[in-house]
Amino acid sequence: MERLFLILELAGTLAFAASGAITGLKKNMDIFGVCILGLTTAVGGGVIRDVILGITPPTTFLDPIYAVVALLTSLVLFLPRIRRLLMWDQRLYDLVLLIMDSAGLGIFTVAGIRIAYQQASRPTLFLLVFVGVVTGVGGGVLRDVMAGDTPYIFVKHVYASASLAGALTCVGLWPLVGEAAAMLCGGGLVIAIRILSAHFRWNLPHAHD
Amino acid sequence: MERLFLILELAGTLAFAASGAITGLKKNMDIFGVCILGLTTAVGGGVIRDVILGITPPTTFLDPIYAVVALLTSLVLFLPRIRRLLMWDQRLYDLVLLIMDSAGLGIFTVAGIRIAYQQASRPTLFLLVFVGVVTGVGGGVLRDVMAGDTPYIFVKHVYASASLAGALTCVGLWPLVGEAAAMLCGGGLVIAIRILSAHFRWNLPHAHD
Amino acid sequence: MERLFLILELAGTLAFAASGAITGLKKNMDIFGVCILGLTTAVGGGVIRDVILGITPPTTFLDPIYAVVALLTSLVLFLPRIRRLLMWDQRLYDLVLLIMDSAGLGIFTVAGIRIAYQQASRPTLFLLVFVGVVTGVGGGVLRDVMAGDTPYIFVKHVYASASLAGALTCVGLWPLVGEAAAMLCGGGLVIAIRILSAHFRWNLPHAHD
Repeated sequence: MERLFLILELAGTLAFAASGAITGLKKNMDIFGVCILGLTTAVGGGVIRDVILGITPPTTFLDPIYAVVALLTSLVLFLPRIRRLLMWDQRLYDLVLLIMDSAGLGIFTVAGIRIAYQQASRPTLFLLVFVGVVTGVGGGVLRDVMAGDTPYIFVKHVYASASLAGALTCVGLWPLVGEAAAMLCGGGLVIAIRILSAHFRWNLPHAHD
Repeated sequence: MERLFLILELAGTLAFAASGAITGLKKNMDIFGVCILGLTTAVGGGVIRDVILGITPPTTFLDPIYAVVALLTSLVLFLPRIRRLLMWDQRLYDLVLLIMDSAGLGIFTVAGIRIAYQQASRPTLFLLVFVGVVTGVGGGVLRDVMAGDTPYIFVKHVYASASLAGALTCVGLWPLVGEAAAMLCGGGLVIAIRILSAHFRWNLPHAHD
Repeated sequence: MERLFLILELAGTLAFAASGAITGLKKNMDIFGVCILGLTTAVGGGVIRDVILGITPPTTFLDPIYAVVALLTSLVLFLPRIRRLLMWDQRLYDLVLLIMDSAGLGIFTVAGIRIAYQQASRPTLFLLVFVGVVTGVGGGVLRDVMAGDTPYIFVKHVYASASLAGALTCVGLWPLVGEAAAMLCGGGLVIAIRILSAHFRWNLPHAHD
């Protein structure tokens, strides 16, 4: 269980770092900018979570494996040759990235909730859900704000709402079925909603519809 | 006194949430984006304040009434029928929003100062005033940064300077006339400056004038 | 040594505040916006550092000399007459600003590392370097995000990478040569790289080259 969890977290870190690095590449940033944006996207959500929960310095600084994975991912994507190789089949590449990103969103959401349970002396529903969603989507918001884009979560697709649905499910089931099953259900729901919504192009209602 | 304070804080929360939700609607965000932007505008200033003062998790997560009010406000404004009803008389609507927003700015500013006094072991003038102003304007800055606009406080009207004038007044009077009177004078001054400046279209000097 | 350090820190504060104020002037902000942007640029990196390290309230609020210098700098630059006088010789002005900004970047980077050493119970390499770089470049990132620009560090010149090289040097030498010498070498390296890169127009590789 712990081992599977770690692997999924690393897959999510890799996917988040890739999305940050690719944003930087599209904006024609230099190698440093690409690495910073990849790192921020991958660990930003966790840093915001830790600051809100009063965990200082944030755990990512004491256990830098996620940061190292994020930096390596960004560096590798910076190399034109590898980028061309990876993007040889654009559809396959997009699919792999979608699955990894969904895994990351699901894992980070329930991991955030677990840490909030461990840390907060009085874990309210709102605190748990908020911390879960922030851990899941915070890195992407920082990426977009720093890159000068309107945050992705505001304009396209079912993204933060997948994280929210999973967070509510996880927190709701937690006292009933225990930690492991609640995290599995919540995280699985995030991944399912995210992948299905991307496939069927679901969207939430807009006011101008 | 406590009761009046709570009512004014809720009015401010409602107005701040409405300004965030309306920004989201103008940007054609989906229902989730509108709620997030309403929530961020309403509670963002308080969260920044608590992080600066070391109050973790921030109080808004433990006492979620403000968050609930902010989310309900955003949801209601999302409904086209209600929006049309509310905006039936555009001038009246603008006036109500201005008064509520001014109340929020004034109340949040002095409420921030009170919490800084309670929390800080060494409350300097700069800390008290800064925390007051951040509590008042922080949510609006987050709203504009997340929506991709230049923060409102930088470009238009006397807004943050109303908060600053009230904060200085409140902190200056505090040791002389006591908590209640200082908060009343400071908050009242913010509201007065904000409403008068909107009515008479006051502006601070620009360098190019 | 302490005295020299203070003078250099004040020079850096002055330069950072000037860069923030000038950004605000270019965006046609009013006097309040110019001061806020000058203040944010000068003390923002240190506030982020203190929040990450759990130093609340951040030291800048308890020892407001840097904030006062930043506000005075912004106010003075707002006066058209003084601005014209200072910019009488544009090349000299640019040179002075570059040297002061480089001094600020170097000093802030190594000052951040020193505070991380003092504060963290388990100072990892990643924590020390990250905190150093954030202290150095954080204020500029906040300035650009708040002003609606893509952060400077992402698009132009060797800037954050100068801070990174100096931070790595400082942390690497610290256990070998002691605090003072490590800070001197690290800070000096930042300043040298920054000035040389500006003079010779060095750039890091971009992916599209």
